[in-house]
Amino acid sequence: MSVVYLSGGVGGARLLDGVVRALPPRRVTAVVNVGDDFDHLGLRVCPDLDTVLYTLGGLGDAARGWGLAGETFRALEMVKRYGGSDWFALGDGDLGTHLTRTQWLAEGLTLTEVMARFADALDVAARVLPMSDDRLRTRIETDQNGVLDFQDWLVRRRAQPAVRAVRLEGDPRPTPQVLAALEDAEVVLIGPSNPYVSIDPILSLPGVRERLERARVIAVSPIVGGRAVKGPLAEMIPRLAGRPASAAAVAAHYGGLLDGFVVERGDEGELPDGLEVRASATVMRTPRDRVQLAREALELAGVAT
Amino acid sequence: MSVVYLSGGVGGARLLDGVVRALPPRRVTAVVNVGDDFDHLGLRVCPDLDTVLYTLGGLGDAARGWGLAGETFRALEMVKRYGGSDWFALGDGDLGTHLTRTQWLAEGLTLTEVMARFADALDVAARVLPMSDDRLRTRIETDQNGVLDFQDWLVRRRAQPAVRAVRLEGDPRPTPQVLAALEDAEVVLIGPSNPYVSIDPILSLPGVRERLERARVIAVSPIVGGRAVKGPLAEMIPRLAGRPASAAAVAAHYGGLLDGFVVERGDEGELPDGLEVRASATVMRTPRDRVQLAREALELAGVAT
Repeated sequence: MSVVYLSGGVGGARLLDGVVRALPPRRVTAVVNVGDDFDHLGLRVCPDLDTVLYTLGGLGDAARGWGLAGETFRALEMVKRYGGSDWFALGDGDLGTHLTRTQWLAEGLTLTEVMARFADALDVAARVLPMSDDRLRTRIETDQNGVLDFQDWLVRRRAQPAVRAVRLEGDPRPTPQVLAALEDAEVVLIGPSNPYVSIDPILSLPGVRERLERARVIAVSPIVGGRAVKGPLAEMIPRLAGRPASAAAVAAHYGGLLDGFVVERGDEGELPDGLEVRASATVMRTPRDRVQLAREALELAGVAT
Repeated sequence: MSVVYLSGGVGGARLLDGVVRALPPRRVTAVVNVGDDFDHLGLRVCPDLDTVLYTLGGLGDAARGWGLAGETFRALEMVKRYGGSDWFALGDGDLGTHLTRTQWLAEGLTLTEVMARFADALDVAARVLPMSDDRLRTRIETDQNGVLDFQDWLVRRRAQPAVRAVRLEGDPRPTPQVLAALEDAEVVLIGPSNPYVSIDPILSLPGVRERLERARVIAVSPIVGGRAVKGPLAEMIPRLAGRPASAAAVAAHYGGLLDGFVVERGDEGELPDGLEVRASATVMRTPRDRVQLAREALELAGVAT
């Protein structure tokens, strides 16, 4: 039975790593958000895809959750010295990824083809698919600062401007590979990623929701005890959903799409009737935590591990 | 009295460093070859300009003569791991230069403006001018491999394919800054650079030869005892000039443009009548050697140091 895993960056990549350790990796297809992708210093930067790539390739910085372990920042120091744009932390090794991708895209490869080559080079056995080969720009409508590009809001302004709405700009189509993977999948896992900026872009693709309705869909809550394990989600929920941040708010956001939901123990309150709930330890600190949580989610999905 | 210095990369940059130590740097304007510039992995790379910049900024690798001291190559290692293009040694710090330049050019700055910002950031007091803000492509016509881009021939193929001719492709104009500097200069020094691929591109610019004819022009020989201190010049001279490599062959190439010529002791033979010759120690191993040779060239030029 093949499994499709919808992923954003850090949290999504961690659980995905557990899933590919719990199952034969070839049975797992990750469909990864590209709404955060942006062009920076002339390079195509794909934060979520690269976080997934580095994490599955065993090259990721485990503590930080993104970027390469042992990364250096000499190029960025020179950029800074010249007075160039230095607000986005491009590591030296990471630059090798962006340079190669930008070059190959310019040569006419699709992003899907580029990521397949990268995965192959890093011995990543699971399939890592961009949700689309088209551009989608997630933008943040703020109270005080107008509409900001996502990385501008998240990184440059440290997610400080209060969010009024999330805009998904563009008209991306899912790739044939994504549609085929969803067609084949009996189970879809939604990682503990930000529903608004990491998962909604995937769900917004034409044809994706329809296919998810035919699969068994299990999500893992990105909210633990009212807080986000990482990122600005806990501040976004009250603004966008008009209720306190909670696992229940996330479940309500996904609505009828979900068959099952894995939440932190103690977070079972206010969950919709009819939703199959598994309470567990959802904060992944070690590789073992990742596998354990993956097994619980897969078990709830009905996949033997 | 202001001095214009025509420069290629390594050898030219070393003597230039001596010149700006021997004179108040503000009196020195370097006009630097751009015929070697190329686009690589989407970045504008300017080997001669950057060698001059790093050397004058005190950041250069003194032993190698190009690139940054203490450079690392993590980005390139990732590119290589992916199977990308890794034949040109882009260092991590160096990438910061290329990224910033490429970005600023894309924003509409001229190369002259970009290099002025770089020089300012690195506290380089002498003016470093690209010979042109237009593109010029030096290409190498070979016996066996057709016509090759310069870096492809020099770096990728290690200058192995035998040279039949050097082609300067493009229609570059000198910048107003270059023309004004030449207008003001009573003395022009030609560094110990390759005449065919480093200096000829500068001399080929419309209006430059005419201005040089009105100045006192002193060159320093890049050939020492029949050998090039660095690079493929010694192999090029027999192919392009039909005579053995020698200081005299270089002098003959520049012809009536030269008023004076500084050569290695023992290399005074066969030099044209009427050329003022200074025999000296021309191999620069230490900063002191650079200053000493600069003083000799400036003295021959009639510039008090």
